[in-house]
Order: sequence, then structure tokens, then C-alpha cells
Amino acid sequence: MEFKAGKKSSIGTNKFAINLFFENSTRTKSSFQVAEMKLGMNEIEFEAKTSSTTKGESLYDTVKTEESIGADIVVIRHSEDNYYEDLVNNHDLKIHIINGGDGTGQHPSQSLLDLMTIYEHFGKFEGLKVGIIGDLSHSRVAHSNAEILTRLGAKMYFGGLNAWYTPEFAEIGPHMSVDELCQEMDVVMLLRVQHERLSAEENHNFSKADYFKNYGLDQRRVALMKPETMIMHPAPVNRGAEIADDVVECDKSYIFPQMANGVFMRMAMIEAVLEGDKASEEVADQKRQTVLR
Amino acid sequence: MEFKAGKKSSIGTNKFAINLFFENSTRTKSSFQVAEMKLGMNEIEFEAKTSSTTKGESLYDTVKTEESIGADIVVIRHSEDNYYEDLVNNHDLKIHIINGGDGTGQHPSQSLLDLMTIYEHFGKFEGLKVGIIGDLSHSRVAHSNAEILTRLGAKMYFGGLNAWYTPEFAEIGPHMSVDELCQEMDVVMLLRVQHERLSAEENHNFSKADYFKNYGLDQRRVALMKPETMIMHPAPVNRGAEIADDVVECDKSYIFPQMANGVFMRMAMIEAVLEGDKASEEVADQKRQTVLR
Amino acid sequence: MEFKAGKKSSIGTNKFAINLFFENSTRTKSSFQVAEMKLGMNEIEFEAKTSSTTKGESLYDTVKTEESIGADIVVIRHSEDNYYEDLVNNHDLKIHIINGGDGTGQHPSQSLLDLMTIYEHFGKFEGLKVGIIGDLSHSRVAHSNAEILTRLGAKMYFGGLNAWYTPEFAEIGPHMSVDELCQEMDVVMLLRVQHERLSAEENHNFSKADYFKNYGLDQRRVALMKPETMIMHPAPVNRGAEIADDVVECDKSYIFPQMANGVFMRMAMIEAVLEGDKASEEVADQKRQTVLR
Repeated sequence: MEFKAGKKSSIGTNKFAINLFFENSTRTKSSFQVAEMKLGMNEIEFEAKTSSTTKGESLYDTVKTEESIGADIVVIRHSEDNYYEDLVNNHDLKIHIINGGDGTGQHPSQSLLDLMTIYEHFGKFEGLKVGIIGDLSHSRVAHSNAEILTRLGAKMYFGGLNAWYTPEFAEIGPHMSVDELCQEMDVVMLLRVQHERLSAEENHNFSKADYFKNYGLDQRRVALMKPETMIMHPAPVNRGAEIADDVVECDKSYIFPQMANGVFMRMAMIEAVLEGDKASEEVADQKRQTVLR
Repeated sequence: MEFKAGKKSSIGTNKFAINLFFENSTRTKSSFQVAEMKLGMNEIEFEAKTSSTTKGESLYDTVKTEESIGADIVVIRHSEDNYYEDLVNNHDLKIHIINGGDGTGQHPSQSLLDLMTIYEHFGKFEGLKVGIIGDLSHSRVAHSNAEILTRLGAKMYFGGLNAWYTPEFAEIGPHMSVDELCQEMDVVMLLRVQHERLSAEENHNFSKADYFKNYGLDQRRVALMKPETMIMHPAPVNRGAEIADDVVECDKSYIFPQMANGVFMRMAMIEAVLEGDKASEEVADQKRQTVLR
Repeated sequence: MEFKAGKKSSIGTNKFAINLFFENSTRTKSSFQVAEMKLGMNEIEFEAKTSSTTKGESLYDTVKTEESIGADIVVIRHSEDNYYEDLVNNHDLKIHIINGGDGTGQHPSQSLLDLMTIYEHFGKFEGLKVGIIGDLSHSRVAHSNAEILTRLGAKMYFGGLNAWYTPEFAEIGPHMSVDELCQEMDVVMLLRVQHERLSAEENHNFSKADYFKNYGLDQRRVALMKPETMIMHPAPVNRGAEIADDVVECDKSYIFPQMANGVFMRMAMIEAVLEGDKASEEVADQKRQTVLR
């Protein structure tokens, strides 16, 4: 939040970052790029489709190469869950690794920007009721957020298709209808239906209209919410599927403010990683854990 | 032209640009990038094929995302005519939009660099005879230039296949043979045959040799021209189709100088948009109209 | 080596570079990018798959376009052998061309970084025995290195499939078994099997296990080497094919140090080209020859 208030970075202009995105993403990659540029860093381009990984190079060798060439940090988004375990446990890399999202696993920078956005609004996490509606089982954000918000004292609830409410979420909190969630939650987090992670059969049977009717957030459901309730979404949104067109930018929606916060949070993550900032041990500890997982 | 004379920009180094090119282009994108870098701006990378538009995100949401992340201007090239109307009319975006070419519609930055190149040579537009030869119907440049040059007092003429001389051009000026145009024009603008916009049948029936013979600019036709006549082309050129190899860089050709002017003109466009420069209301008005269309 | 020792560049921040990579590469492109950024240059993005070359534009026109737009140097990697001959012999380009690798021809920046790495270790080239093992016939590095090392007084030897030991290499030095090479060489250079350059039949008959057994560098073969012997590889490595997993980063391996040197060597190449540095005529001459070929 210090960066949002105008704090200048002391990293200098001789640091290099590379963003290895093996999965598509506009906003996470752009957000990391802007964060790096605002910190004064130089960015090395990387395009997965024309890289040496197409010649059979391993992820480790790609990362070690970038380290050798002079990169100080590498942000990685990869389709494989826990891809970083091999990098961190089996090798001795000097380059700093930041997880930009792994498979259906974690998405720590998204989690942290969500936390920042909630904290700006409520000034606390303790006792907040947070509901996540959507494809929990395929969502990195749901995994990361459910776990960390519970640790921070929030109570988690879930909505959407029963098939998506897998045992790991059942252990964390109850399942409710979307109407109930809208009435009771302090924060309603929506998730995109990730068609690219569904099977051909699941996609065939999927009806956007039915989904919207059963689980989509429209003005009727927004009207059920308490005055202070926040609507959040990691984006990209599918208008007319999980959210009505006219809800995306309504007063209760923090969807675009989340994106703005993402740049500042990523600046803080990169700075913490590069400078080993120990000012706030508690926050740093939590960041390190989150970043490394 | 002030930038060409060495003027420094006062924009500063904390501005961010993103170039959303949904259609292929080497020179327009490179030209905008160099203009942005010469103005001291930072550039956010964007690759259409790996962006969230592949997850069904709308153009508006992509643009709003970049605005939220911190982009100050967005340059858009899109295959859809008038794509910008929805962005400008239906939404309240703070980010500045610059049209880098829309479908078969307009290409204002190309038009302005053409105007700059003509003005450098003749010092006026009033009374100039300007002929455009080629695939008028699919050309953004022909649309933009025919309209704006007419408004500025030039007389427009057209050449090439009759099928390409659609009613909207017939309203603006007469159709002539290429030999006649070479004899009479002050400016001969050539257009590339855009095979990627022709139908399979049109491409099948197309003979490069026939086209060159009937409409191509060779040394014989160049010899028909008046001493001061300029040869222009928005490029990329197809050597041996609309222009002979040895004409591309002949004395009368301004094809590569057009590209050099493109960078300076785009610097001026971006600066005007960012600084709301009101020094010359007339020019600014014209720019605004052109930029916004 | 001056840049490695901390020398600052005097090129300034108003120079533009473009890297035209028409073939895939992580490390060469990244290495040039970092070199350019460390020299304070601006980089113009280029993506071969969405460029105007897909509209039929010639390489010359692409390069001339970038020159017109303001690029000071262009680094080109191209699949065609000697692509640069047309550019250099038939045209009058002001932009500086640096060969980033041509087809199965030359790869001068890789050669120079190899030379630098060898020189750092031995302090000389005269009398060194250098063995290259692998797909000589398809390797740019083998061509460049065999020629230049011979000129500098080293003795060349070769290993790997007999089919790859083509007459041009037979003229330069003898063929030996990998065990013999490990016992006698001062430098063992491994090459990747370039499956993307083999025929379908060659790839079908290729057995990775057989290759590793006959020609791969494992710990047993490393144990045959003299204490001072260097292991080198232009990378990307195929672990378990031409090199064992546990040899890649062993004490004798200079594979990642080669990459680190690559950035410094490329900074020196670019500076020499831009500044026409004549301090050391001998080195510069050799560079010019190598760069231009």
C-alpha cells in the first residue's frame, strides 16, 4: 500500500526481470510488467511458443539460462501444479522465483491483491464472511484465497455446482445457494467458468443461460446484499455467464480496483524478494510463504 | 515536424503505452513503439494470440483492464470496422485510444504521415492532383486519404481494377488509366493488392504479371511523370506486382521517407492526445477528428 | 572482457536495436536483449509470425523499414544460409547488421563467446586440442568454431556419427571415438542433436539411449579427462542424449559460464559495430570478419 501512496522504489535501474508465461494471460503478465517497469527494472522478453522449450529444454534449464544471462527475478506461470518444487528443492538457483500461477494450484499474487483490496475496504479480515462462487475445483484463486483467508480469521462459504465443491473445500466451509450467499456475505468472490479446463463433455452440456440463472450475479441478487458487501472477480469476466453485464462496474464491484491494486502489490512482492525487506516480519513471513508456495 | 527538427518531448518517463495489434503489422506497430520510446514512455507488451481475448474477453474489458493496470494510451489495430465506436460511445474510459487501423475503415496515423510527407514536398495541399492506384475497396489508407485530402483542397483521381472503384470513390473523383494518372498527377499513391482480404476465387484468378502490366508502376510509366511528381506507398510493397523492383527506391519515390515521417507524426499524435495541446486549434481539431474516427 | 570487469558503455540511451529472429531461440535472443539493455539501448519488438513477412515482404524490405523507422542495429537469425549476402552486397543499408545465426552456416556471436570462455581458462589458443562431438553437419557452431579456432592455432578433432563427419570437417581434423577425445582434448565441445533439422527417417531411426551410450558424455568419460579439460555446449542441452544429467553442472563444465560470457561478448560486438572502436585493430579485425560472415 506504500507504493499506492506514492512511495518510490530504491531498487535502481540495473535489475533484470523475465516473465515466463507458459499459459495465456493478459492481466497478470501486464500487471507484473508494469510493476517491474515502475520499479525501474529492465524486462527480458519471453515468448513460450518460440522458446527453446520447443527444442526439449527443461524448465530448470530455461530458468538457469536466464539466471546466467543476468536476470534477477523470474515470474513463472505454468500449467503444471507445484512446478516450482523441483526448481526450489533440487537445485541451487540464485535467481528469485515468483509464482505467477501454477496449474490448478496456487496464484499467490492474485491472493495478495485480493487481500489488499479487502483490507482497504474493511480494515480487517477477522470475522468477515467470504463466499466464493464458481468452478472451485479448477481455480488457483479459490485454493489460495480459501486457505489464506481462513488463516487470517475470515469464515469461508462456497457456491456453484455441487460437482465443483470438492472435499478440500468441504473441509474449509459450507456450501450455500447463491441467494443465501448474497444475503449473508461481506465479500462475494465470483469465478470464471474455465472452459479451457473442462472436458469436451462438460463443455457440451454447459448452458450459459442456465448457469447465469442458477449461479450468475444479476441486479436482483445484488439487491439482496448488505450495503458494505464487496463483489470481487479475478477476471477475465464472462459477461452474461457468471455476472450480468450491468453488474461488472456497479457500485459494489471492486473488479477493476482489484487490477489497479495488483500492480502495487506486485511491486511490493518484487521489492520484498529483491531487497529482503525485514521491516515487517509478520507480513514478510506471510509473503514468503505465499510466494514460495 | 517539430519532432523531426529535434524537438524534445515534455511527457516524462512515467507514462505507459500499450499497443493492441489484433492484425499483423511490422511497420505500424514498430513505428508506434519507436515513437513511444522516443517520447520516453514505457511500453506494456501485448500479444493477441496469448491474451485473455482467447478466453472470451471483450475488447472493452481488455482496454479497461489495461487502463486499470496503469496504461495512459492504447493504440489499437483491429479487423472490425469502427471497433472504437463501442469503446467511445458506450463507456467512460479515461485511457486515450489511438486508432492504429480498423478493418477496411480508417488508418489515421498513416493518413497524417502521408499528409506530412506531401506537405514537406509541396508546401500545400490546395490544388494538388492526387491519384490512388490499387485495391481501393479494401484499403484503409485510400478511405482516409481520399476524404481528408479532398477536405484540404486536393483533387482526387483513381486507378486500378474497375471492380475496386466502388461508388463511395466515384463520388469523390474520376477513374483513369495508369498512364494518364502518371502524366497528370502531382502525387501517385500505390496500394498493395491485399490477398488476405480477397476471396479464394479472386485470388485464384489473380495474375501478378497481368496486374503489373496493366496497373504496375515501372520505369516507362515513371518517365511519363512531371519532374516534381511524388510516388508514395503505405507499404509493405509487393515488388513486381504494383511496383517494379527498381522503382521502389528511385528518385521520385518517397516510400521509405514516409516511414521515417511516420515515427515523428506518431510522436506528435501521442503528445497531442496526452497533453491536450491546444497551440494550433485547427490542426488539433483535425487530428482529434481523425484520431477518433 | 572489459564489460565483464565492470566497464561502462558510452553508447548513450538514444540508440535503437531490433532483433529479427526468424528461428526459435531463447538464449541467443535473450542474450542480445540483455546486452542491448545493458548498453542503454532501446529495443523494438519483433515477432516473425505476425510481421509483414507474412504478407510477402522481403527480408531487405523489412530491414530497410526498420532502418527508416530509426533502428541503429539489427540482429538477424534466419534459416537461410548466407542470407546477409544479398543485404550487404546488393543494397546500401546504413543500419548495422549483426548475424545472430544463419541456417547451417555461421553463428559468430556464439563463436566469440566460446573463444572468450576458452581464453579466460587457458590464456591462449595456440596448441590447444579442441574436440567437437555431435551433429557437425547441421551445426552453425561447429562450422564457425572449427574454422576460427584453426586460424588461431588450435588443433581440431571431431566425434559422433560418421555420417555427420562431412568432407569439409575431414579437411580440418581427424575423427576419433568419444573415449579417445575425452582422454586427449583440452576442450570437449558437445552439440545438441538437432531433431528439427533431421529428416523424418533419421528421426525415426534415432535412439536416444543408443546415442547416449555411443557418444554421450557421462561421469565415466569425464573421469578420463585431464584435470584442466573444459566441457562446453552451446545449449540448449538434451539431458540424457548428448550429456548426462549430472555432468551438465559438474566442475569441468563451462556451459552456464558460456551463457554469462555471451552477454558481455555481445555488448562488445554491438559497441564495436556502433562506435567503430579501433583501439585493438587485431581484435576488431577478427570481429569484423566474423560479424560480417
